[in-house]
Amino acid sequence: MTYCVAASLKAGIVFVSDSRTNAGVDSVSTYSKMYSFGIPGERQFVIMCSGNLATSQAVISQIKRDIKQDAEENLLNAENISDVAEYIGNVSRTQQEKMSNTGTSFESNFIVGGQIKGHQPACYMVYPQGNYITTSNDTPYLQIGEEKYGKPILDRIIKPTSNLETAAMCALVSMDSTMRSNLTVGPPIELTIYEADSFQPGRYYRFDEDSEYLRTLKKTWDKLLKDAFKKLPPVAWSSNWDVKDAEEEESIEKRS
Amino acid sequence: MTYCVAASLKAGIVFVSDSRTNAGVDSVSTYSKMYSFGIPGERQFVIMCSGNLATSQAVISQIKRDIKQDAEENLLNAENISDVAEYIGNVSRTQQEKMSNTGTSFESNFIVGGQIKGHQPACYMVYPQGNYITTSNDTPYLQIGEEKYGKPILDRIIKPTSNLETAAMCALVSMDSTMRSNLTVGPPIELTIYEADSFQPGRYYRFDEDSEYLRTLKKTWDKLLKDAFKKLPPVAWSSNWDVKDAEEEESIEKRS
Repeated sequence: MTYCVAASLKAGIVFVSDSRTNAGVDSVSTYSKMYSFGIPGERQFVIMCSGNLATSQAVISQIKRDIKQDAEENLLNAENISDVAEYIGNVSRTQQEKMSNTGTSFESNFIVGGQIKGHQPACYMVYPQGNYITTSNDTPYLQIGEEKYGKPILDRIIKPTSNLETAAMCALVSMDSTMRSNLTVGPPIELTIYEADSFQPGRYYRFDEDSEYLRTLKKTWDKLLKDAFKKLPPVAWSSNWDVKDAEEEESIEKRS
Repeated sequence: MTYCVAASLKAGIVFVSDSRTNAGVDSVSTYSKMYSFGIPGERQFVIMCSGNLATSQAVISQIKRDIKQDAEENLLNAENISDVAEYIGNVSRTQQEKMSNTGTSFESNFIVGGQIKGHQPACYMVYPQGNYITTSNDTPYLQIGEEKYGKPILDRIIKPTSNLETAAMCALVSMDSTMRSNLTVGPPIELTIYEADSFQPGRYYRFDEDSEYLRTLKKTWDKLLKDAFKKLPPVAWSSNWDVKDAEEEESIEKRS
């Protein structure tokens, strides 16, 4: 499995991905799932992928080839980021169709985000079927892969007005939660922070398994959460009404 | 769907369940999934269920009938809680087998926890196949239903030595995270706190949709989490080594 998340904010876009791939629990490898493309000063993109590794690699190769050969449609001449999402969807479908007579699924999902001069930064998730969705004010983030474990913290913290540093830490905490709960998501963790209107590749970090920073983040977060629990209103404070109402209803049926 | 969690601690057992059942998004109902049985001073059990509602109800009915009829095997004469788990598994299988020729699955999962005089408190999860697992020092909690969203916070907080109040609040936060992320889990939320060696039904709370306590808990937790993020070590603090190492590797392949 995989876990990738992108948060699209007013201040820019934060991308985080893990690097574990697996085909069964005894066929585990490390592959980066984050790719950067762009022309400094003009346009910048980050692409992340999940799903079938062969399809993902084939799509990224095709994207690179199209750039090198200056193909009619490629990342460096697209007018809008939605055109880029459409293009990735087409490349992905073409790759999958090559294997279509095998009866197996070779699906991949992609997140692409970035900015083209003259446009706002934007982020899209591309489905294996080639269609795509973008973020909104209410849902400023996109996830692919093993997304459930890390979703609650994103829902609570990420707002379009969040600053890049907070969003990056939130995405890393979301990744840490996912790694704790699911073996098929693992380090190195990659992080790119793209600042809106910078048109530069952005700050890139890679955290290995023994990363001092990741360990500190995890330890500090664990401690802060434990402290936070001490400040929550104890259950005993809940109104008697709640208790009484329940008892009336329950005593007959259930307290047998 | 459903979400139920039980935390088995040295101090006792905490049970939390939601009350939403659904068969498609336009067939949503409210049913309690938490049932208490026992003889004060002698034995106490709480049973929670997820999965097919007809199977769950049939199993609970059979359990009540067996108690009323003082059947050879019933909750009030079982010697161990593992015997209770075995018994629930058998009842569940019998109920499912009635529908076995329909080709559809009518599976239910159960959590049963409590204490029988002369024994330690214990907690079991019963699979639809009738087999069951218990908690351990490393994994002191059990979940059934929509378990992924609420798992990370349990992994971080619940320890066998946690006190009942902390575990109850953690289970409620875990429930809140799940409700935020999944429509098929919803209030009222039921909570039972069983104190070890009390052999009494335990403190029972029911939180409705408009529960003041639940709203305060949610608001306080949101604020505490946001405050916690302010205290995390900023990503910029991560060592240059991480950044450099990554750049060396990435600049050739990816920064095309």
